[in-house]
Amino acid sequence: MIGVFFNRSVSPVNLILLYTSDFKGPHHVRISGRRFQHMRSVHKAQVGERFRVGVLNGLIGLGEVTVLTDQYLELRVQLNQAPPKPLPLRLIMALPRPKMLKRTLETVATLGVKELWLINSYRVDKSYWSTPILHADTLREHLLLGLEQAGDTRLPNVYLRKRFKPFVEDELPAIARNTRALVAHPYDATPCPAATAEPTTLAIGPEGGFIAYEVNKLREAGLEPIHLGPRILRVETAVPVLLSRLFPLAL
Amino acid sequence: MIGVFFNRSVSPVNLILLYTSDFKGPHHVRISGRRFQHMRSVHKAQVGERFRVGVLNGLIGLGEVTVLTDQYLELRVQLNQAPPKPLPLRLIMALPRPKMLKRTLETVATLGVKELWLINSYRVDKSYWSTPILHADTLREHLLLGLEQAGDTRLPNVYLRKRFKPFVEDELPAIARNTRALVAHPYDATPCPAATAEPTTLAIGPEGGFIAYEVNKLREAGLEPIHLGPRILRVETAVPVLLSRLFPLAL
Repeated sequence: MIGVFFNRSVSPVNLILLYTSDFKGPHHVRISGRRFQHMRSVHKAQVGERFRVGVLNGLIGLGEVTVLTDQYLELRVQLNQAPPKPLPLRLIMALPRPKMLKRTLETVATLGVKELWLINSYRVDKSYWSTPILHADTLREHLLLGLEQAGDTRLPNVYLRKRFKPFVEDELPAIARNTRALVAHPYDATPCPAATAEPTTLAIGPEGGFIAYEVNKLREAGLEPIHLGPRILRVETAVPVLLSRLFPLAL
Repeated sequence: MIGVFFNRSVSPVNLILLYTSDFKGPHHVRISGRRFQHMRSVHKAQVGERFRVGVLNGLIGLGEVTVLTDQYLELRVQLNQAPPKPLPLRLIMALPRPKMLKRTLETVATLGVKELWLINSYRVDKSYWSTPILHADTLREHLLLGLEQAGDTRLPNVYLRKRFKPFVEDELPAIARNTRALVAHPYDATPCPAATAEPTTLAIGPEGGFIAYEVNKLREAGLEPIHLGPRILRVETAVPVLLSRLFPLAL
């Protein structure tokens, strides 16, 4: 564990993300806009107070408030630690319904997934593909929220594939090659394997599961069906359950 | 795995819960009201169609629609399987905020928890205790939803403790005795232990964690702090992550 994170005089905000454009000098940032409003009203930021900070896709550390005005605040930052290790996982999910998609993006970012493919499936309602959540900026917002929750900085990549068949035939075999390749599917499956730190490809179906045709195509692409026992989980419960079974605590 | 569940001619509803009052004969039930409306409009129940069914706190099996009217339907049922094994877990949670409480009750029931204590904590807003979700009937509704999702029938018991100190001093030591007793807390903690099937007591704090005073009281009651690595998870993510790390797939 890293001792500096557990200094009791640091604000209990998990992490404030910083962007290159915030920097006025090598250790000097200025924050305005939404993040400033949030730090002022929710976290009651005061001069001298310290926060955990991290640069997007960069290092993490501590930042101390040096200037506080009505429009912005400034921090003196020391960024000297690596963010938490990523999961060696390529996660493929049938596109969830919008409300669940939001929470899923955040959870997936929090858990350390760096590569997410959102694909179509028979049981994915066509309307889900029209959701504004899939707009690049909104998608990114939810991923950033997930990173801030976890204390991570590395932004995941999200790929959208509206057509199941071309994805599974043309792209998935190469994605899955040389990885532990699995599809979570309760039927005709072996039990979820033990935790290892090896590169993994995991596909999770929609509520109700992939249909038989889809499971066969996924098998042809190299994915082996695995189950989680007799209980049927909702997708949003299955994600953390699967990820915490498949990977050890210390990667 | 139990073959009968994977008969493709069975409706993909996870489970329909039955109550003793539904039974007109040993294998003959009549369903009206909300469950009937749901089966008719959402699942488009037809005569001859089969559903997975289970008696509350009893066996599970299949039911075939024999009669369908505008007011009710009737099933011929065979209840010949045990529900999924429960987790040998006493789960203690600081009361979540109402929206998260709803989902937590469902998730906890889905995952097989049978004993849930909802307790106070410094970081639990007093207003959370007034939520109508804590009314016995609403609480039960959410637990039943979780059971139907998982295909389980055994209703969990939920205990409410509005005062932290008396609970932790007077009740918790006996609850924790002779169990693997843990509190999920990211600071000054050992890594989450490996999966075993042994009786376990697990306490999970509010968003932001238990305060130091509370962690000390929990330690005094016999609970050992454990962590999940460097990532800070929201409570609703931490629950499935912890439960799937602490217990094996096959109990």
